[in-house]
Amino acid sequence: MTYISDKGRRLRKVETELSTASTEDKNRALKKVIESLENHRKDILESNALDIELAEKNNMKAGLIDRLKLDNIRLDGIIESIDTVIKLQDPIWKSDKVWTIENGLTISRMTVPLGVIGIIYESRPNVTVDAFSLALKSGNCIMLRGSSSAIHSNKALVNAIKEGLRASNISEDVVQFIEEKDRQYVNDMLKANEYLDLIIPRGGKELIDFVVENSSVPTLQTGVGNCHIFVDESADIKKALNIVNNAKTQRIGVCNACETLLVHEAIADEFLPMLYNKFKDTVEIRGCTKTREIIEAKEAKESDWKEEFLDYIIAVKVVKDINEAIDHIGIYGSKHSEAIVTENFTNSKIFLRKVDASTVYVNASTRFTDGGEFGFGAEMGISTQKTHARGPVGLEQLVIYKYLVIGDGQIRK
Amino acid sequence: MTYISDKGRRLRKVETELSTASTEDKNRALKKVIESLENHRKDILESNALDIELAEKNNMKAGLIDRLKLDNIRLDGIIESIDTVIKLQDPIWKSDKVWTIENGLTISRMTVPLGVIGIIYESRPNVTVDAFSLALKSGNCIMLRGSSSAIHSNKALVNAIKEGLRASNISEDVVQFIEEKDRQYVNDMLKANEYLDLIIPRGGKELIDFVVENSSVPTLQTGVGNCHIFVDESADIKKALNIVNNAKTQRIGVCNACETLLVHEAIADEFLPMLYNKFKDTVEIRGCTKTREIIEAKEAKESDWKEEFLDYIIAVKVVKDINEAIDHIGIYGSKHSEAIVTENFTNSKIFLRKVDASTVYVNASTRFTDGGEFGFGAEMGISTQKTHARGPVGLEQLVIYKYLVIGDGQIRK
Repeated sequence: MTYISDKGRRLRKVETELSTASTEDKNRALKKVIESLENHRKDILESNALDIELAEKNNMKAGLIDRLKLDNIRLDGIIESIDTVIKLQDPIWKSDKVWTIENGLTISRMTVPLGVIGIIYESRPNVTVDAFSLALKSGNCIMLRGSSSAIHSNKALVNAIKEGLRASNISEDVVQFIEEKDRQYVNDMLKANEYLDLIIPRGGKELIDFVVENSSVPTLQTGVGNCHIFVDESADIKKALNIVNNAKTQRIGVCNACETLLVHEAIADEFLPMLYNKFKDTVEIRGCTKTREIIEAKEAKESDWKEEFLDYIIAVKVVKDINEAIDHIGIYGSKHSEAIVTENFTNSKIFLRKVDASTVYVNASTRFTDGGEFGFGAEMGISTQKTHARGPVGLEQLVIYKYLVIGDGQIRK
Repeated sequence: MTYISDKGRRLRKVETELSTASTEDKNRALKKVIESLENHRKDILESNALDIELAEKNNMKAGLIDRLKLDNIRLDGIIESIDTVIKLQDPIWKSDKVWTIENGLTISRMTVPLGVIGIIYESRPNVTVDAFSLALKSGNCIMLRGSSSAIHSNKALVNAIKEGLRASNISEDVVQFIEEKDRQYVNDMLKANEYLDLIIPRGGKELIDFVVENSSVPTLQTGVGNCHIFVDESADIKKALNIVNNAKTQRIGVCNACETLLVHEAIADEFLPMLYNKFKDTVEIRGCTKTREIIEAKEAKESDWKEEFLDYIIAVKVVKDINEAIDHIGIYGSKHSEAIVTENFTNSKIFLRKVDASTVYVNASTRFTDGGEFGFGAEMGISTQKTHARGPVGLEQLVIYKYLVIGDGQIRK
């Protein structure tokens, strides 16, 4: 625990300094970090090349190597994302509620940073910079624990960040990077309630489950999406086809992609053959018995209803009505994003009200559940839990509030 | 796990029914519960007498027995508190944010219940009814695990609640009571992520720490308050004396009582003797070296700065300025309620901004950190954590939100 406690103590030491820093100082620090990243392009790309070399030696899958890889264009993107954060409104020390109680005390609820956030993440080195810049803008210190496969890239990025901070009014200690590869340090972070106010796991289901199960620090569960689209009896078939196609194929490896299609039995004979034509060369259909009576499809197994394919595969089930659709989503959904395509007003209302997910759609693709699309700017991920924050986690979700009570000697009777 | 899973499944089965119930149906159900509690006064008091008898046999402390005891007046209070909840505004399906993005999608953020809340609590049987009524009004199902010393009282109360619900449109299954005394069921609750969305421990520090450390379900930490008052150099001495006296003695056993007093060295010679006169027959003073040079006091040990006395005891420390006061609070405070007494504008601003606590006061007693005083009506407790909800946990803190996205066939480009 010493290693983590030492980092934790450094963070706590500068917590108040950052939590009370002005927007001007925070933005200036982010600009200095951009400059420093520009200056360190060479070191960063060289360090990344080292990670790639090791990954290839370890026979890492091509897809993962691609996620790990940095080049000048990707570095441009990383730098641009800091610029986006600079332009976002500072979420701190704002109030949506001020009131005065009978005895004259004025109470206001002000937004404040959470304090210190821990991020445990896999592969992609851009997360290092994104998480840092969102944390800094929202006044939060950050402890970063990246994947060991990206250790050289992350170290080079953090070095550049720290050099940028040294040229600013914000202490370089607001970011602490866990360099040690030993998995024990992850376990230590999960028990570091004294030093961390929130832990966000970013990565696959296994990592997220491990963190949620073992952390005594509050966690923010992000990332797993088993999203459904229900094509209702009254759906506009053209809209439905477009929406399903977009939600399934516009980008397959994302958490807001559609994984299961539910089709009302009264429209299945008309809709499914059109879907089949659209998907036959691109998307594998795994259908229920009724689906397979209408179109050619692989047989869907129980496990297919549960799976986040992240691939050109879709599970299809014919349901007898909206209630069966909602029940299916209740059992198999991951509370991420769920959509109905319908022209029936009452059914749209029922679906919006009864489906329990971060985002519920009528007549639109599930692909819009995204901080950028929602207008939040960058995001830490999509929360699928029910406490603290739900849906896209942008700057406004990285805060909590405190009450200020202003008196003139009031005492309680 | 079977016992908890069985209860959990029942709760999940009726979750949507309750989360989408109308305010009218919820209020009617609460009225029926009031009627039923009135009808069962005799059973409830008899069951409570049984608990008291056992408690006396087990040599429970008088203070705890008093907390456990019910009589007709306390039952009146319990029933009245349901009436208060009926009168509170329903916090569900409200929006503070609706916006339309470029492509015409309209996004609204609507409040929704958390789902199923677990409460693990000690002694006081009124918590059974309070927690139930707050949960019901906010559309949340509830799993109750009370202290085994109150088992008969709690059973009788839950029976009355369920009978009331049977006469309403809300299923009696929305409340599940853990009758089994075995502590294993607490452990099972803490791992029941499938069935519980939030666990709130209500009780002493030991219980809270145990729950926070061992739960994989998100928790809401409430209750522990090591609150400070800092009497600044420029304080109005009369206000300061009144405020300290009120915060320390108006009710000693509560989390928002003052436990440590910090006094600016420039005012200590004047203020401390007045404090001594006020407290000499009622409150034990444990002072730092400088305090004991000015007034007669026991020596304060390191442990005294950490302790929530919940008693007629106050720790007193002379500090050299506001920064030392803020640092002391940073080290020893429990992030509950902190106050400054000052006439200096800049110092009030510094204190409000830099002190990290759920509620920060200028020139008022810390005793106002309370759902009732804040105008929230009843409350589940005072949260001292940094995520989800902070300060008094009333109806509005028992909700989360979901995004509704209304389209006309929009797809992502």
